[in-house]
Amino acid sequence: MSKKITVTPFPAIVPSPVVMVSCKGKEEDSKPNIITLAWVGIVCSDPPTVGISMRPERYSYSLIKESGEFVVNVPREDLLLATDYCGMVSGTRVDKFTKTKLTPVPCEKVAAPMIKECPVNLECKVTQIIEIGAHHMFLGEIITVHIDEDIRRNGAMDIAKMTPLAYCSGSSDYWGLKGPLGRYGFAKSAFD
Amino acid sequence: MSKKITVTPFPAIVPSPVVMVSCKGKEEDSKPNIITLAWVGIVCSDPPTVGISMRPERYSYSLIKESGEFVVNVPREDLLLATDYCGMVSGTRVDKFTKTKLTPVPCEKVAAPMIKECPVNLECKVTQIIEIGAHHMFLGEIITVHIDEDIRRNGAMDIAKMTPLAYCSGSSDYWGLKGPLGRYGFAKSAFD
Repeated sequence: MSKKITVTPFPAIVPSPVVMVSCKGKEEDSKPNIITLAWVGIVCSDPPTVGISMRPERYSYSLIKESGEFVVNVPREDLLLATDYCGMVSGTRVDKFTKTKLTPVPCEKVAAPMIKECPVNLECKVTQIIEIGAHHMFLGEIITVHIDEDIRRNGAMDIAKMTPLAYCSGSSDYWGLKGPLGRYGFAKSAFD
Repeated sequence: MSKKITVTPFPAIVPSPVVMVSCKGKEEDSKPNIITLAWVGIVCSDPPTVGISMRPERYSYSLIKESGEFVVNVPREDLLLATDYCGMVSGTRVDKFTKTKLTPVPCEKVAAPMIKECPVNLECKVTQIIEIGAHHMFLGEIITVHIDEDIRRNGAMDIAKMTPLAYCSGSSDYWGLKGPLGRYGFAKSAFD
């Protein structure tokens, strides 16, 4: 078996989800923005809650803080170019919806638009802001979920059709998923 | 383009990382335990911090709460059976290290052991406990990281050799990763 090496602490959990968060300031005529994030995930099943972490210097941080709302849009593999781009440039300089040609679609319960091309969209209301360090985490209760009809299966999702992206912080690249290895709970009696 | 359908809110962010968290009570002779979790992720880069969510009824919850420490062990694909099992049974009934034959190895800075067979191990100290709902989230600062020599590359990780697991809540199964699609930042000038 391989020898273990002790290294300087780094974000060594892989893979992370990669999502595009859309948001909008409080003013009616405020322009919506998109920020790509990987330090995100589900943090509670009931009420269903997400955590999204970002640096307070980011433009989207102020939009979400003032509006108390955001939308988590989960992209397909074929949106990788726009996904990476929206993590690289600032909404203070460019209108990312216009640049990427992603389509803003009105949400049901939040003022920010969802991204039409993303097959999964979660409308969220901020419940807490945790100031951790260089990143602050918004906790957002998921109040509405929209999914594209063509990836729906048994009330949930067909992952093979959805083709989500995974970010690997250990190598700084995006990966695709290859296929299912086992169902949750399949090993319950494996060691009895 | 496919029509969007509004569904009951569920944890629709995919994929999630899947990790085995090892922990131990405060008493010297307390037995270590393992719990598999998917509601986990990096929440801050500096200080490097993880968030791990679990129900307070879980045995590991009390162990981590009393010790203020835990270890995040990131498994390879070939550990899927043990990984799923450790999320299914309670440490109040079985000694999961003995049952799964996973090897506890002493850590440097926390009393709980790491899991030798996992190629990445993060020693963490609890900095905050956030009571969200059915799940509470421990925030843990990553104080030491160990990685297996055979997956090390350029000071970080060779993901192809590591073969991490991804959990898809939308279909309730574990997936493997197929290969890199692009490097972080590759699309920075794509829409200029």
